[in-house]
Amino acid sequence: MTTTTKKDIKTVAIIGTGVIGASWAALFLARGLKVFVTDPAPNAEKNLDTYLHAQWPTLTQIGLSEGASLTNYTFVDSLDNHFDEIDFIQEVPFPFANAAVILLTVIKNGPERLEFKRTLFAYLDEKARPEVIIASSSSGIPSSEYVSACRHHPERVLVGHPFNPPHLIPLVEVVPHTATDRETVVPRAMEFYRSLGKKPVLIQKEIPGFIANRLQAALLMEAYSLVSRGVISAADLDTTVTSSLGLRWALNGPYALNAMAGGGSFQHMLEHLGPAAKSWHDDMQKHTFSMSPEAIQDLTRTVEPMVQATDLEALQKERDDVLLKLMDMKSKSSLLE
Amino acid sequence: MTTTTKKDIKTVAIIGTGVIGASWAALFLARGLKVFVTDPAPNAEKNLDTYLHAQWPTLTQIGLSEGASLTNYTFVDSLDNHFDEIDFIQEVPFPFANAAVILLTVIKNGPERLEFKRTLFAYLDEKARPEVIIASSSSGIPSSEYVSACRHHPERVLVGHPFNPPHLIPLVEVVPHTATDRETVVPRAMEFYRSLGKKPVLIQKEIPGFIANRLQAALLMEAYSLVSRGVISAADLDTTVTSSLGLRWALNGPYALNAMAGGGSFQHMLEHLGPAAKSWHDDMQKHTFSMSPEAIQDLTRTVEPMVQATDLEALQKERDDVLLKLMDMKSKSSLLE
Repeated sequence: MTTTTKKDIKTVAIIGTGVIGASWAALFLARGLKVFVTDPAPNAEKNLDTYLHAQWPTLTQIGLSEGASLTNYTFVDSLDNHFDEIDFIQEVPFPFANAAVILLTVIKNGPERLEFKRTLFAYLDEKARPEVIIASSSSGIPSSEYVSACRHHPERVLVGHPFNPPHLIPLVEVVPHTATDRETVVPRAMEFYRSLGKKPVLIQKEIPGFIANRLQAALLMEAYSLVSRGVISAADLDTTVTSSLGLRWALNGPYALNAMAGGGSFQHMLEHLGPAAKSWHDDMQKHTFSMSPEAIQDLTRTVEPMVQATDLEALQKERDDVLLKLMDMKSKSSLLE
Repeated sequence: MTTTTKKDIKTVAIIGTGVIGASWAALFLARGLKVFVTDPAPNAEKNLDTYLHAQWPTLTQIGLSEGASLTNYTFVDSLDNHFDEIDFIQEVPFPFANAAVILLTVIKNGPERLEFKRTLFAYLDEKARPEVIIASSSSGIPSSEYVSACRHHPERVLVGHPFNPPHLIPLVEVVPHTATDRETVVPRAMEFYRSLGKKPVLIQKEIPGFIANRLQAALLMEAYSLVSRGVISAADLDTTVTSSLGLRWALNGPYALNAMAGGGSFQHMLEHLGPAAKSWHDDMQKHTFSMSPEAIQDLTRTVEPMVQATDLEALQKERDDVLLKLMDMKSKSSLLE
């Protein structure tokens, strides 16, 4: 099987820039890789250049790998002449397109968007060397929905979904479709992301939202409900999270924390505290936030004063500064993930 | 109204030690307060002494307030002779009792436990000076369920629910009952906790689980479901949280993050990304973890290898070390909560 070829990944192609694609490019360059980028959007090349220059000081602070260079990328109209060199492909949905093969119509609804994706992946599968992994960054469309368009090596197609922005936040959700090669392709994709300093996790079955977005939605839906019901202010809800749960979850996951709470026994913890969690969960289901336009408007009216009173840009800058230090502390610890 | 008396809080009584009560004691002592502690459990006095000595180096590292002393507490059989001095009462449910007034039966089921609580609060309300706030640390029993036993000043009774351990984790959920004095008692309680370096939040209505435990349960229930369904391993689920959501939530709450994601507009974000969150939430409801004994056993079998492979004690030690540094960085920032 060709996918067992163990060639090192030295050159990556990114299809589609925008915020996610540009951030992937920044990460690949900082890790010493060569990058081809393509995106037919107006100003895409200029925007990428601006973004990379803005992020490079941060990446330098985190630490550059051997051979890392801000200029080690080529923006191309088409990847056609470069597939010999390309060892890994990271596709980024919307806004993106490959001018050589794709209708330039702006396509927003599901089926057409999917058709667009099928065309792109058929092209990539035809052109890329057989052992090259083709990873989609999509959070929404699992690869099983378009992989049938890949007639050559569908087994090297999967989702590699990052958490925004990929050059800073470590998570990558690796989501194979049912026919993705689990023996070599999945481990190679995991290993590649790991080699970049990322934290890849393997999602065994395609489910809506994958994992991080589902867990986030579980908490957010209750957060929307609580503030909508007047139980707590938006500002106090935020403080609740940042001064309790968030502090824990930045350092330990739910299962490790449960085992600690159970004095080393997960079962003990779940038997004693699980029924209460279940009862609260049942109560939440009685008050699910409707997400109707009216509910969104009402909630916005409640939240807006807090947002207006916050200098979000300054907050984000201060947050990023502490975030880098936090991740640095974690990377220097031997046990924390 | 007597509760308007603005006497500073210099002396606190803690009723019930155990882990939470001992941690409260450590915090109060580190902030320079004088503490009376009572608990009829065997070895309670000795255990408290051991706990305080173990925690004092950490509290010293965080920074002691003026007048802070590890020995500035008195373990008493009864508070009877000390109410003149007591300025604030922090009750801690189970295991606890005041030998002077309470049956020493170990009471585990609901109604009796409530009867026990009524007796205790009636006693405290009768003895404490009128302006003294009586705060329960209970996560489960809202004060409306027993405050009718307080015939003198029910308006100074509320819940002050900490996140474990209170001497480290900043959150305190302040939960008044419908007749708690919102003009003076609630603000004084909030201000008192704030003066200790805590982050009090106000919960406007008594609801099951209050806020932090509900938000936690929302995420945990989905985490149990995902691993039970074989979608992801427990270890990878933990990594998902610690390498994405937890990093964010340690520094910014959901509402601030939503506003950032919407480019300053919460409404914009919710209109564009809310429907997806709602659809994932709908999907979660189809797969709710049952919390049946069989489901707990099956999940435990899946989780146990990860727990067994983890040195939880070493992990916790390393975690606490990074946690202290993280909280120190946050306290030095001007905008992060």
